[in-house]
Amino acid sequence: MTKKILLRKSSNLPCEEAIFTNMGIILDSGYKLDDFRISFKTYGSLNNDNSNAILICHALTADQFVTDKNPITNKEGWWSNMVGPGKPIDTNKFYVICTNVLGGCIGSTGPKEIKSDTKSPYGIKFPTITIKDMVKVQKILIDEIKIDKLYAVIGASMGAMQVLQWIIDYPEKINNSIHIAGALKHSAQNIAFHEVGRQAIMSDPNWHNGDYLIKNAKPERGLSVARMIAHITYLSEEALHRKFGRKLQSRDLVSFGFDADFQVESYLRYQGSSFVERFDANSYLYMTRAMDYFDLSEIFEKNMNYNAENNSHIHHCIISFTSDWLFPTVENKEIVKILNKTNKKVSFTEIVTDKGHDSFLLDEPDFYKTISGFLKSNNNKE
Amino acid sequence: MTKKILLRKSSNLPCEEAIFTNMGIILDSGYKLDDFRISFKTYGSLNNDNSNAILICHALTADQFVTDKNPITNKEGWWSNMVGPGKPIDTNKFYVICTNVLGGCIGSTGPKEIKSDTKSPYGIKFPTITIKDMVKVQKILIDEIKIDKLYAVIGASMGAMQVLQWIIDYPEKINNSIHIAGALKHSAQNIAFHEVGRQAIMSDPNWHNGDYLIKNAKPERGLSVARMIAHITYLSEEALHRKFGRKLQSRDLVSFGFDADFQVESYLRYQGSSFVERFDANSYLYMTRAMDYFDLSEIFEKNMNYNAENNSHIHHCIISFTSDWLFPTVENKEIVKILNKTNKKVSFTEIVTDKGHDSFLLDEPDFYKTISGFLKSNNNKE
Repeated sequence: MTKKILLRKSSNLPCEEAIFTNMGIILDSGYKLDDFRISFKTYGSLNNDNSNAILICHALTADQFVTDKNPITNKEGWWSNMVGPGKPIDTNKFYVICTNVLGGCIGSTGPKEIKSDTKSPYGIKFPTITIKDMVKVQKILIDEIKIDKLYAVIGASMGAMQVLQWIIDYPEKINNSIHIAGALKHSAQNIAFHEVGRQAIMSDPNWHNGDYLIKNAKPERGLSVARMIAHITYLSEEALHRKFGRKLQSRDLVSFGFDADFQVESYLRYQGSSFVERFDANSYLYMTRAMDYFDLSEIFEKNMNYNAENNSHIHHCIISFTSDWLFPTVENKEIVKILNKTNKKVSFTEIVTDKGHDSFLLDEPDFYKTISGFLKSNNNKE
Repeated sequence: MTKKILLRKSSNLPCEEAIFTNMGIILDSGYKLDDFRISFKTYGSLNNDNSNAILICHALTADQFVTDKNPITNKEGWWSNMVGPGKPIDTNKFYVICTNVLGGCIGSTGPKEIKSDTKSPYGIKFPTITIKDMVKVQKILIDEIKIDKLYAVIGASMGAMQVLQWIIDYPEKINNSIHIAGALKHSAQNIAFHEVGRQAIMSDPNWHNGDYLIKNAKPERGLSVARMIAHITYLSEEALHRKFGRKLQSRDLVSFGFDADFQVESYLRYQGSSFVERFDANSYLYMTRAMDYFDLSEIFEKNMNYNAENNSHIHHCIISFTSDWLFPTVENKEIVKILNKTNKKVSFTEIVTDKGHDSFLLDEPDFYKTISGFLKSNNNKE
């Protein structure tokens, strides 16, 4: 059984995909993954010496459609304001790659995938995926498309976790790193919020112990509740207050009932219901679990020291947002502290904003300038 | 049809109850409530001039069993550390009264009550209850048990909302007020968390549009998820971190699955499952709605001015906790500011603790001293 990798246009999505066969990859859990597919999208052009490639690592519920119109939602890509010609991550200069993570549901192999031996979807028989596993297959793909060294690896939130993992596992493959609104480990409170979301999904009778696809069902209500919980944590109290306060929804007086009286209620209900149209419930379980398991608090500093020979060339940029209570500045600074202590090249910026964790998706001029400035200032190859 | 009020020992709970018949009370919603029952518990003895009565207003999921053993849970009452002989609220000196709120599920009339005309439980045909309605029936009960003036009205969280409502609606009935960890209004973020909890309950197929009692079902999973969400908001990130961090549950290695790997997960699951044994899901909907509707931000200051003649005698004590992010100090201070501006007698204490909103239930010596000190210093009748 020889390894085989097939790069091709995806047949059902406007992007590329790589089909990996007989890879024999051992995941963090010990599971041996032979066959899988990674769906990815590229923007801009690779230059002659293959030195202008930027890998963007997406967050929990995002996908490879970083910019332009998203073919699933028909809305703008999640980072359209950041990535494109003349944008902070300028596709006139850079060749941008984004892969749907392993375990995801937008083209890459995940729990909704048909298992070749049983001919039915994996469901929760899919192996547990960690951030390290996501990065492992990204690295294989990057090698396959002949990129010896990434100009930069960039990510926010779960994407930031992937950035740290890249720095630890494949430092020789990257010149620059941009880590946005992340942490060395997922906190107890963050695990708690994820756990409640998972319980909401797994409590939905339509979840059918993960086998809802076989049963032709969908745990829509559970997934919607999970999304609503998570969505609150992405916003700051200030943002919610400014956006909604106690304003009523399409009425002057409260209904004295359980309709969505307040605008914040109907907003959350909309967030929940629109999410279930585009996301797979089991993938949500696997992605949140990957984040919960993430913990480099023990090994990051050690690795920065012991592996200095291979990682000291990297320029790091760490960015946090003042009102982010999910991945607060103090947790981002932990990383900065370690990078400084271990004599790395690191710049840190805390963006003042009241928009919470979601600030990385929103219009924040200082944030844009920080990223474009960093990418320009480190434009020389090592 | 004449009004009738019957005070008696409850037949199924170790407390008293008042049966109100033909009362014709108009609720905030406009609904006319004729018949209802208020279940209440008293501790200590009323003195000869009826001047030592303290009304304790309970929080969202608490009940009238403030201290000693709770007959429903067989655990200690929710405020056993605060109320009792020689405790900060000393039942050797004070006659303590606590009523299960209207709309509750521990003896007082609420949505699980059998409606006299249909002979089946109200379900969500029960009228919407507001904080003002809760206080209205407490006042009727207090009158009925011949207490002309309460020595104090005390409450935390939803109980604090009731305290503010007492100050506005019946100032002539109280000498002192202790308002703990509350606010003039429920914030957008707090409404959002409640809304997700309600959606979790209402998404549970066993909720049966509120008619689960008739169907002999129970929306246990939805209610459990709602409790889990709420429970996270009662604790601070610091408390969660100190209590659980990323510690694993009864194992050395993660399971690479969806079991409760982390202690915080199994703790939350326990909080959820133990809650459904003691609480009615529809009551939870009504209680959270009452809190969401609470908003004195417009009228509190006006009332303090216009009604000065009737309210200026009250000594107010406002208490907040540094790590409470549900009802943060800044919101409690809003009340202090208004009381000061309108020339009232007010003392304010912020207790330094990392235990979050739940601090009012926990062992906090400075908190105890603040309450016992306040009650002693204002021991003289006006």
